[in-house]
Amino acid sequence: MSADLEKPVAGGGLLDRRLFLKKGLSFSVAALTVDSASAADWQQARSPWMNEPGEPFSNYGRPSSHERKTIRWVMANSMAPGNGVSWTPLHDLEGMMTPNGLHFERHHNGVPKIDPKQHHLLIHGLVDNALVFSVDALLRYPMTSFLGFIECGGNSNAGWREQPIQTQAGYFHGMASCSEWTGVPLSILLDEAKTKSGAQWVIAEGADASVMNVSIPLDKILDDCLIALYQNGERIRPENGYPLRLIVPGWEGVTHVKWLRRLRLTDKPVMARNETAKYTELLPSGKARQFSFVMEAKSLITNPSFGHQLAQPGLYQISGLAWSGRGKIVKVEVSADGGETWAEAALQEPVLAKCFTRFRIPWRWRGGMAVLKSRATDETGYLQPERETLIEQRGRHGYFHYNAVVSWAVSETGEISHVYR
Amino acid sequence: MSADLEKPVAGGGLLDRRLFLKKGLSFSVAALTVDSASAADWQQARSPWMNEPGEPFSNYGRPSSHERKTIRWVMANSMAPGNGVSWTPLHDLEGMMTPNGLHFERHHNGVPKIDPKQHHLLIHGLVDNALVFSVDALLRYPMTSFLGFIECGGNSNAGWREQPIQTQAGYFHGMASCSEWTGVPLSILLDEAKTKSGAQWVIAEGADASVMNVSIPLDKILDDCLIALYQNGERIRPENGYPLRLIVPGWEGVTHVKWLRRLRLTDKPVMARNETAKYTELLPSGKARQFSFVMEAKSLITNPSFGHQLAQPGLYQISGLAWSGRGKIVKVEVSADGGETWAEAALQEPVLAKCFTRFRIPWRWRGGMAVLKSRATDETGYLQPERETLIEQRGRHGYFHYNAVVSWAVSETGEISHVYR
Repeated sequence: MSADLEKPVAGGGLLDRRLFLKKGLSFSVAALTVDSASAADWQQARSPWMNEPGEPFSNYGRPSSHERKTIRWVMANSMAPGNGVSWTPLHDLEGMMTPNGLHFERHHNGVPKIDPKQHHLLIHGLVDNALVFSVDALLRYPMTSFLGFIECGGNSNAGWREQPIQTQAGYFHGMASCSEWTGVPLSILLDEAKTKSGAQWVIAEGADASVMNVSIPLDKILDDCLIALYQNGERIRPENGYPLRLIVPGWEGVTHVKWLRRLRLTDKPVMARNETAKYTELLPSGKARQFSFVMEAKSLITNPSFGHQLAQPGLYQISGLAWSGRGKIVKVEVSADGGETWAEAALQEPVLAKCFTRFRIPWRWRGGMAVLKSRATDETGYLQPERETLIEQRGRHGYFHYNAVVSWAVSETGEISHVYR
Repeated sequence: MSADLEKPVAGGGLLDRRLFLKKGLSFSVAALTVDSASAADWQQARSPWMNEPGEPFSNYGRPSSHERKTIRWVMANSMAPGNGVSWTPLHDLEGMMTPNGLHFERHHNGVPKIDPKQHHLLIHGLVDNALVFSVDALLRYPMTSFLGFIECGGNSNAGWREQPIQTQAGYFHGMASCSEWTGVPLSILLDEAKTKSGAQWVIAEGADASVMNVSIPLDKILDDCLIALYQNGERIRPENGYPLRLIVPGWEGVTHVKWLRRLRLTDKPVMARNETAKYTELLPSGKARQFSFVMEAKSLITNPSFGHQLAQPGLYQISGLAWSGRGKIVKVEVSADGGETWAEAALQEPVLAKCFTRFRIPWRWRGGMAVLKSRATDETGYLQPERETLIEQRGRHGYFHYNAVVSWAVSETGEISHVYR
């Protein structure tokens, strides 16, 4: 390990991603050095909670009351409170997992209170054997697990606005969350149903009061889709589809139909509201993109980000998330000078396909203004675009699938704002 | 893919782990085949929850009320309710993750209600710079993530009893859970404190009312230990150490000190209650094993397991968990004939070091009696022992570190019991 690790590797104070393996770094601005008498005082000091027995055991735990700010932020229609979204607070989280209580929500008519004993899945249409599955029956089928992200096609759409939105990273990009989903591969269920020749699409329908439905190509369904029953080990939460959710790895969230009740095999898409009026993108040519299912590579810095405050100049670790619906993230580059120069961040293992990847890089903030950016490259070679490139290709009226580079400006006093540059 | 996949690969009906990739398998005992008129009826049927708006959004989600049976099972001292354990219900879970609400607990005097603004970590003893860290200060340090298990050294100790305990798998082996922990590598903090020559042990102390403490070799602390602040993305829950927990990958749970307030570097262990009176193992020779930190390779079948009921003969998937404190699991073998013959199970990717690994294998139950077992091998070549081998080596009075092969007997009527054979 050479002393070169402390040399900047890009402008604005970015440092080698291996720096924190080095000895003798100074974080003295953070820790308080104490003499031995004072250390003895700290050792002897007894906080109130060391002097009385603590709380008893619980059957099911909850976060500390001191973390009440870490919540899903709800944006719902006041006239129809079951229609809206809630956001994962990515700016408050670390690592790659999203706890189940904070997984983002998108509902059209609220969360149905489903009794699993009365819920069934029907597979019909262009099949030899129309099949009905109870939840108990599905629990007897072979299962597999997929650890990965779900992202709403409308995530980050504030990025299309003329002016940069000034809000926390999670309330801008947090219609994306990452869980381990476990359930039955659809290839097994459709093998049992025996698909007829001519079947090319699968119409998935949910058991909520909006009877949400959407069309998915049969090839994708057979490739890697699951009927999930478990999320992060336990049965799926009501707001995430209890008892059954369709998982479509890497594709936009609307395809991951919750409260799944029906899969109908057809020769053409159903042209539902959510693939015609919505989840299509108006292009500069006046035509619209439709069935733009895949979530392209994306990344953002979550720490520091809007709402955070840098205490004083010194050594920091920049930390963020990257993901791609096409496979693994192979590289995340970070810039601290608004994109003039870039340095490669460290990727936290394990790096998994179609899954959040946590990236981190050391940064010495010298107290001046800076613009922090990240850009991800996935295993297909796709590079996350700058905002102006995305707008050039797709215009300003697409609404969905915004995945441009995100820029955070740091002021001389350490405040963070969202900028377009 | 040849038809050979349906040939048994071991006694008792075990089938090739790739079987479920094959076409034309029959699970007809589970699904209901319906004619087209009946399929139309199923399609039209509207459950009550499709006819009225659902529940509104929530800031923090909870499991379905229909899953209230999936809880931590609490065993606490009625005279001192903060002393005891609660168990992860492994028999109700799938995949490798444990949701935060169900992570097992072991407390000596309850869960302290710590105000993070008043909590500090002191590093002192054989160091040049005694250091005090506030929680906010630690949040400024570089972080890394470890996705892995924590297992209590006393987990599965009912296995030492003369008679096999008849209880659910989670209430026998569920003092083990698996999370993504994110926090500050101790190598960075001890570099800043500058360890003195002669320092060989670190005494870790918690801020609970039992002031739990334990000694850990400095080499391990510098190798891969963390001060964790986050569990599965969010800040650690109170019962798992909020705001700070020491993470000691692969080592017994007692070393993962919760509510961490102090690390004292010394030249010898402190000989605390939890490394002398407890967490030591009496051997047949009359001597005791002490500082037996590493959790050796272990596995168990979670489905089917005690309390489950096989509905009828047919094709099943056996599913279970394996882990090792020494590294990755490289092989899990399953037997359906009480250990006469064995077949290799499929391991769910990603397979990570010191982490739960989900294994699965197809099994055709023909309706007779069967004894199901699993045995794990880790990357060091260590093979999980049969119970009689473990007892031969360690006697019957060790109490801790029971990791023998677990056997579930299936009766002719499909009931599952725990047996020693």
